[in-house]
Amino acid sequence: MSLPDLTPTPADARPHVVIVGAGFGGLACAQALGGRAIRVTIVDRRNYHLFVPLLYQVATAALSPADIAEPVRKVLRRHDNIDVVMAEVTGIDVAARRVVVDDVGYIPYDRLVLATGSRYNYFGHDAWAELAPGLKTVADARRIRASILLGFEQAEICKDPEAQAALTTSVIVGAGPTGVEIAGAIAELARWTLRRNFRNVDPATASVVLLEAGPRILPAFPESLAAYAHERLVKAGVTVRTNVVVEGIDPDGVFVAGERIRARTIVWAAGTSASPAAAWLGTEADRLGRIRVERDLSVSGLEGVFAIGDTAATPDRDGAALPALAQVAKQQGRHLGLGLAAQLERGAALPAFHFRNRGNTAVIGRNAAIFDFGSRQLRGWLAWILWALIHVYLLVAFEKRVVVSVQWFWRWLTHQRGARLISSDDESRAE
Amino acid sequence: MSLPDLTPTPADARPHVVIVGAGFGGLACAQALGGRAIRVTIVDRRNYHLFVPLLYQVATAALSPADIAEPVRKVLRRHDNIDVVMAEVTGIDVAARRVVVDDVGYIPYDRLVLATGSRYNYFGHDAWAELAPGLKTVADARRIRASILLGFEQAEICKDPEAQAALTTSVIVGAGPTGVEIAGAIAELARWTLRRNFRNVDPATASVVLLEAGPRILPAFPESLAAYAHERLVKAGVTVRTNVVVEGIDPDGVFVAGERIRARTIVWAAGTSASPAAAWLGTEADRLGRIRVERDLSVSGLEGVFAIGDTAATPDRDGAALPALAQVAKQQGRHLGLGLAAQLERGAALPAFHFRNRGNTAVIGRNAAIFDFGSRQLRGWLAWILWALIHVYLLVAFEKRVVVSVQWFWRWLTHQRGARLISSDDESRAE
Repeated sequence: MSLPDLTPTPADARPHVVIVGAGFGGLACAQALGGRAIRVTIVDRRNYHLFVPLLYQVATAALSPADIAEPVRKVLRRHDNIDVVMAEVTGIDVAARRVVVDDVGYIPYDRLVLATGSRYNYFGHDAWAELAPGLKTVADARRIRASILLGFEQAEICKDPEAQAALTTSVIVGAGPTGVEIAGAIAELARWTLRRNFRNVDPATASVVLLEAGPRILPAFPESLAAYAHERLVKAGVTVRTNVVVEGIDPDGVFVAGERIRARTIVWAAGTSASPAAAWLGTEADRLGRIRVERDLSVSGLEGVFAIGDTAATPDRDGAALPALAQVAKQQGRHLGLGLAAQLERGAALPAFHFRNRGNTAVIGRNAAIFDFGSRQLRGWLAWILWALIHVYLLVAFEKRVVVSVQWFWRWLTHQRGARLISSDDESRAE
Repeated sequence: MSLPDLTPTPADARPHVVIVGAGFGGLACAQALGGRAIRVTIVDRRNYHLFVPLLYQVATAALSPADIAEPVRKVLRRHDNIDVVMAEVTGIDVAARRVVVDDVGYIPYDRLVLATGSRYNYFGHDAWAELAPGLKTVADARRIRASILLGFEQAEICKDPEAQAALTTSVIVGAGPTGVEIAGAIAELARWTLRRNFRNVDPATASVVLLEAGPRILPAFPESLAAYAHERLVKAGVTVRTNVVVEGIDPDGVFVAGERIRARTIVWAAGTSASPAAAWLGTEADRLGRIRVERDLSVSGLEGVFAIGDTAATPDRDGAALPALAQVAKQQGRHLGLGLAAQLERGAALPAFHFRNRGNTAVIGRNAAIFDFGSRQLRGWLAWILWALIHVYLLVAFEKRVVVSVQWFWRWLTHQRGARLISSDDESRAE
């Protein structure tokens, strides 16, 4: 049985670029190819581009999922040469130059861009994924939000002090930017937002524990900024423990350094591995599952196939792979889109990609953020304002900028959070 | 085995009023009892009060669930005499004056207020509930939103014109205010918001069919207003069919008047029945499952038990039961709260409830709404502005008023809708 061609626009003489994944890399690549005499199809299993850097705010009841999710086809609607397909890629037939979707059809390509991102890496303990969700999808964020809020609800009608303490305890595994951000946000939620909301439990006594296997938090940042963040987290009420390795996770909590921490909520923020795109291609992946690419982002040995963002291991100037950051994915997407346009329109050679570091940032909480621009560093109140301005600006739609700004300003003023509904099918009795 | 008392605040000499349900009726009753020398416990299986009149806007991608959901304990946090318990009532022991929750504990009461609302009535066809969700919960709204949006996504990669038409067809059963509102909103979503978003399907050709068993739409409104609404719906692209009874529903669509309408999305808005509260009490219910109450809202024969809102059959001046409207529930909640306070504080007799009709409204779409104030009627542009102002004002939190206003203004200006993400566990591949 032959599968049908599912491309929405019928084939014509134009070359066809297929992009898999509408994250930062895939979307930037599509935008760079917009309005040209090239057919482009972007495939994603979701109908929206998710602004993942703010997902921790959904997990901590500050924003709604829709505030940080923009329909891919809305973003690209003005480019008539781009088709958007919501489907799951289930395989790639490199010989026939086809992407197989949902096992029911295919999309043929002349150039293929893999921008399929990464997922959390449980380092062989796959059973932990059920107990300690990461923070990559809207479903993850809703699940974490429901777990935190249900913990307080259950503690309110619990008469056993020990069980009550466990219900209001959150453990975050991994103290990179995501771990730090979510730990700070949970502490603020408990200390401020939930204040006076309960009679039988005091949310200010809720325990937030941040665990890090390495000797200090935020290993990718300079020591002085990490020390500042550490101090601010402790001041916000977070217990920070470094040099501790998680030995086990079960429904009651976490085992660490031979000790059990009883916790209702466990969040996994301890490292990622690439999507299974390397397996689709049958190519060799690196230690983290990433596809090895050349300096021009092409996959060695496979003509017309490229990989960008978290799913690619791109050699840096010094030979090491570039970090898994939104700005790397975005720059690569735009670089490759422009390169492919020049190649397909004029036969130009693909230029090598060079990453320009725009600065690393992490936010600890109210009035506290850090920036590392390499030569310069910034921290505190001004860094926090800058962080907020940049993140609002980076949201795709104008309306969302206004809506998110209003919610942030209101939260800053009142400590209230607008999205405290418990709604997740992963938690019992939540919807 | 005896169950534990789950009330968060320990018992003392104060009388204890337990309210089941934090909808319009239950919340108004609790607020009227706030700050008094009376213990109050309000129990709901959700942690939020849902502003159901705007739920159709969540189902049609205009608002996020959190925009119309406010945590019950946040609303009531300033009243130290009120406990909020998130739990599901599983029975009532009238003899022992106890509410049993989650089968694991109980809450004792001196006065019990049942405000448990209603659900959709499939008139004996319970299997239809799976195929044609009503619009009562956040999960319902997400499911309908996912179904509509996924229909268009699937149509975009579908090469069979007949199947494509079915994927973009929505059928709404029942032309009361909810049916009219959702039909109008789906038509606007397809005609305007999704414009230019697709290549292989034209959303403007999407079919929206509104079915009504009676001779005209909006039977509770005066004929002239209903005729205006009918005309506006047709102009917006809705096919209105009156005098048709749904004979069957299956995964492919609806059977009506001996004919099959193939439809991806079916919404049930054809009448409600009360919550199972009457069964908990073991009392006789009316035809729609409602608890019969006296004019003072007490349940006959059960001392200290009251019922309000959709779950109660309250005799009107002329003996008929009052309609299931938010304003009835709200007025009853406040009336009963004040009455119970006077009774418990001073031994006053409970006064009879009299409904004051504040006017009925329905919105058809952009610039089109109707108001029926009994003696006066209003329709068109001005009614629409009034509708928007009233509904923004009725939202509980100030922040939500601003956020909803911004989103409405933006939609009015651009036809864009901010919450177009497909996210529902009830739909395959949605999250």
